[in-house]
Amino acid sequence: MSTQLRLDLTHAVTDTDLQLLQPNILEAHELLHSGRGAGSEFTGWLDLPSSFDREEFIRIQNAAARIRCAADVLIVIGIGGSYLGTRATLELLSHSFHNQLPRDRRPGTAVYFAGHQLSPTYLNDLIDIIGDKDVVINVISKSGTTTEPAIAFRHLRQWMEQKYGQAEARRRIYATTDRARGALKQLADDEGYETFVVPDDIGGRYSVLTAVGLLPIAAAGIDINALMAGAADAMNAYREPSLASNACYRYAAARQHLYRQGKSIEVLAAYEPGTQYLVEWWKQLYGESEGKDNKGLFPASLQLTTDLHSMGQYIQDGLRQLFETVLTFDRPRRDLQIPRVESDGDGLNFLAGQSMHYVNERAMAGTLLAHVDGGVPNIHIALPEPDAYNLGHLFYFFEKACAISGYMLGVNPFDQPGVESYKKNMFALLGKPGYEAAKAELEKRLQR
Amino acid sequence: MSTQLRLDLTHAVTDTDLQLLQPNILEAHELLHSGRGAGSEFTGWLDLPSSFDREEFIRIQNAAARIRCAADVLIVIGIGGSYLGTRATLELLSHSFHNQLPRDRRPGTAVYFAGHQLSPTYLNDLIDIIGDKDVVINVISKSGTTTEPAIAFRHLRQWMEQKYGQAEARRRIYATTDRARGALKQLADDEGYETFVVPDDIGGRYSVLTAVGLLPIAAAGIDINALMAGAADAMNAYREPSLASNACYRYAAARQHLYRQGKSIEVLAAYEPGTQYLVEWWKQLYGESEGKDNKGLFPASLQLTTDLHSMGQYIQDGLRQLFETVLTFDRPRRDLQIPRVESDGDGLNFLAGQSMHYVNERAMAGTLLAHVDGGVPNIHIALPEPDAYNLGHLFYFFEKACAISGYMLGVNPFDQPGVESYKKNMFALLGKPGYEAAKAELEKRLQR
Repeated sequence: MSTQLRLDLTHAVTDTDLQLLQPNILEAHELLHSGRGAGSEFTGWLDLPSSFDREEFIRIQNAAARIRCAADVLIVIGIGGSYLGTRATLELLSHSFHNQLPRDRRPGTAVYFAGHQLSPTYLNDLIDIIGDKDVVINVISKSGTTTEPAIAFRHLRQWMEQKYGQAEARRRIYATTDRARGALKQLADDEGYETFVVPDDIGGRYSVLTAVGLLPIAAAGIDINALMAGAADAMNAYREPSLASNACYRYAAARQHLYRQGKSIEVLAAYEPGTQYLVEWWKQLYGESEGKDNKGLFPASLQLTTDLHSMGQYIQDGLRQLFETVLTFDRPRRDLQIPRVESDGDGLNFLAGQSMHYVNERAMAGTLLAHVDGGVPNIHIALPEPDAYNLGHLFYFFEKACAISGYMLGVNPFDQPGVESYKKNMFALLGKPGYEAAKAELEKRLQR
Repeated sequence: MSTQLRLDLTHAVTDTDLQLLQPNILEAHELLHSGRGAGSEFTGWLDLPSSFDREEFIRIQNAAARIRCAADVLIVIGIGGSYLGTRATLELLSHSFHNQLPRDRRPGTAVYFAGHQLSPTYLNDLIDIIGDKDVVINVISKSGTTTEPAIAFRHLRQWMEQKYGQAEARRRIYATTDRARGALKQLADDEGYETFVVPDDIGGRYSVLTAVGLLPIAAAGIDINALMAGAADAMNAYREPSLASNACYRYAAARQHLYRQGKSIEVLAAYEPGTQYLVEWWKQLYGESEGKDNKGLFPASLQLTTDLHSMGQYIQDGLRQLFETVLTFDRPRRDLQIPRVESDGDGLNFLAGQSMHYVNERAMAGTLLAHVDGGVPNIHIALPEPDAYNLGHLFYFFEKACAISGYMLGVNPFDQPGVESYKKNMFALLGKPGYEAAKAELEKRLQR
C-alpha cells in the first residue's frame, strides 16, 4: 500500500508565500527531531509506528479476541485523549449503527463510553440498556485519579461486582494505565486486572495508536494492523523537512501563514457524518497543543452538508476571521444510486442513475468555490477512502503537523498547563482536603 | 407554572455598560414588534405560542398517537431548521438511548433522521437496522426540492412502497410542507399523504414549535402541551423592552456589548450530554441570523465537562477573542450517589455519599471562575430542569434574543442570502438544466 493523501493549497496560500516559511519549517523540524524543542519528553509518538511494543500489540489482539468472545458490550471509561481517538475511529470505520446491529452482523463488540463527563443521567441511562448484556470494561487513565473516569469506574465496578461476583468481575475489567505507578495501576495489581500501558513519553492527545486506542478499537472488530501500517507509511512519507515534498509540513505552514494574516479560527469541515468524532479528536489535538500564551487558532468544526443549512450562512458571509480545512474521501464505504421518479416533482430526475456519493462530491466542490468567493481561504485534504489504513495515516499526518505548527507558533505543543486551573477550583469547591483556603475565597466570589 | 430562567451577567458586563445599550434595545424592540424591521414578514414565531392553530395542534397529537401505535420507527426526513429543533428536543428530553430501549420501556416511537446530509453510507446503514421494523416517515420540506431531503425521500419512498405496497406506504407517510404550493405539497395531494403546515411567516430556524418540530416530538412521546406552555410563558415574560426586567433582552445586550468590545466567538457550553443538539440548534439560529454583511459572532459549542479535557486548554489560555455562555440545569433528569470504596486509591472518598450532579455543578462553578480569571467573559443561563416546559421557554428565549441581537447588529435576522451561493455552484456542477454556462466556468476553476 502507498500513501495517497492529497493536499491542495490552491485557495490558501501562494507558493511564494509558502516558501517564505521554509526557514521556520526547518527550525521546527530540527526542534522536533533533535529532541531539543519544548516538551520533547513527550515525543514518543514520533517513531511509535515503528518502535511500538510488539509483545504488547499481540497481547492487545488476544485480549480483544477474548472480549469479542466474552462480551456483547465493551464499556470504555476514559476522557480526553483516552476517549476521543477511540470514538473517532469507531465512528468513522464502523457501521453507522454498529451497537444496534445483531451480534452476528457486526465484526466486534458493541462499544459504549462512560466517564467522559459527569452526567448522572447518562450513567443511569447507560446501565438501563446494558443491564441484561454480557459486559467487559476497559478503564483508561494514566493516573487513575481523573475525576470523571474515576467516578464512573467506582460506580460501574460496583455494578459489575454485583452482576458477576468479585472473581468474574475482575476477569472482565482491563486497565490501560501507567506502566509502574498511580492509583489505577495499584488497584489493577491488587485486583489482578490485565493491564496495558499508557506510555510515559506520549501525551493523551497523541495516544490513539497506543494501547489507549488499540484495545477498544480491536475489540470493535477494526484491523489495528492496517491502522499501524497507515501510520508507519505516514511516518516515512513526512520525514523530510522540504515544503516542496512534505504535505504534512505544507499543511502546518499554510495554517501558520493564515494565522499570521490575521485569521483566528480554523474550521475543519468533513462531508461524511462518520467524521463527527474525528473532528472532535482534531479539535483536542490542535486546541490543546496551540491554545496557550494567549495565542493559537480556535479549532471549530462543520458536519457537511448538514451544516450548510445552519452555519453555512455565517461561513459564506459572516465576519472574515476564519479559514476552512476540508476533509474528503474519494470513495464512500457504501454508495447507492438515485432513483428515477415518474412525476419528477422535486426536479431531480437529471440526477437519476447517478451515485449519491457523486452528488455529495459535487456539493463539496461547489461549496468550496463558493466559500473561497466569499473570502474564506481553503485547505483541502483528500484521502482515498475511510478505512483503517488511511485513518492511521491521517492520525499521524495531523499529529506531526500539529507538533510542527506548535513550534512555528512558539509554544510547547505537548503541555496543557491551563487544564489545571479549573481542577484546582473544582477540588476546592468540592471540599477536597488540602484546598480549604481556596474554598472559602471561591465561595465568596460565587455568592456575589 | 412560572418561568424560572435565571441569567447572570456578573462576569460579562457592568450594569453601567449594559444600561448604555438601553436605547439600542428600545430601537430593536420597536423594529421587531412594529413589524417595520427588515424581514418582518418572518416574525410569525413572535406570537406563535398564543396564536398557533389549535385545530392543527390536535391533528398533530392524533397523528402522533397513530404513529406510536403503527410504528416501531419514525424516520424524520429534513435538514437545517427541519431537523435541528426536533433532534435538540429528543436528545435533551428523551432517555439517552431512547431508540435502543424495548418498546414497552419508552414513551414513544424510536426516531431516526435522514436527508440531513448526502452520505450514501449513512442511508444504507440506516436501512440495515430498520429493515425488519414497522416504519412511518415524516418528510419535512417547505418546497420539496431541497437536495438532501429530496434524495433521501426518493430512496426511502421507493423502499416503503416495496415493503408495504403503494396503498399502505401512502398511509405511512406524513408530509410537513407549504400550506398551498410546492413540489412536496403537490405530491402529498396526489398521493393522499396527511399533511401539516410549514407556516409562511416563520423561517426554518424559528420553526421548532410549529408542526415541523411538534409532530415528531409528540411521536417520540414528549409532552408538546408543556413545550408550548413554556414558550407561552416566555412570550409573556419577555414582552417589556426594559433591560432591568427582561432577561432575554439582557442576554442580547450583553453579547452585543462583548461583540463591540472585540470578541468574535461566542461559545455555548453546557454540562449535560443531552444538550449536544440543542447547542447545534442554537448555532444555526445565531449563525444564520447574524452571520452576514461580514459581521456577527461566530457561534461555537462545548460539551462539558468532556471538552475541558480537549478544548479546555484553549478556552483557559488561548487567543482572547472569545466569551462563554454557560447553560445549566439545577436538577438532572436522573441522579446517583457516589459510592464509598474501601481502598480509596483514587482519593475520591471525600465525595462518597454526594450526588454526582453536585460534583458536576461544582465543576461548572469552578470552571466558570477559572475561565473568568483567564480573561473569558461569562454569561450564565440556568434553568430548573431539562423538561418540555423549560425547553419551550428556552427556545423562545433564544429566538427572541436572536431577533433583537440581529437588529442591534444592523442586519436582517430573518434572511439567509449566503446559503444560495453554494447551491448555485452545486447545481451547475451537477449539470442541472439551465446552469450550463456556470458549469463550464466552475469546472475550469476546479481543474487548476
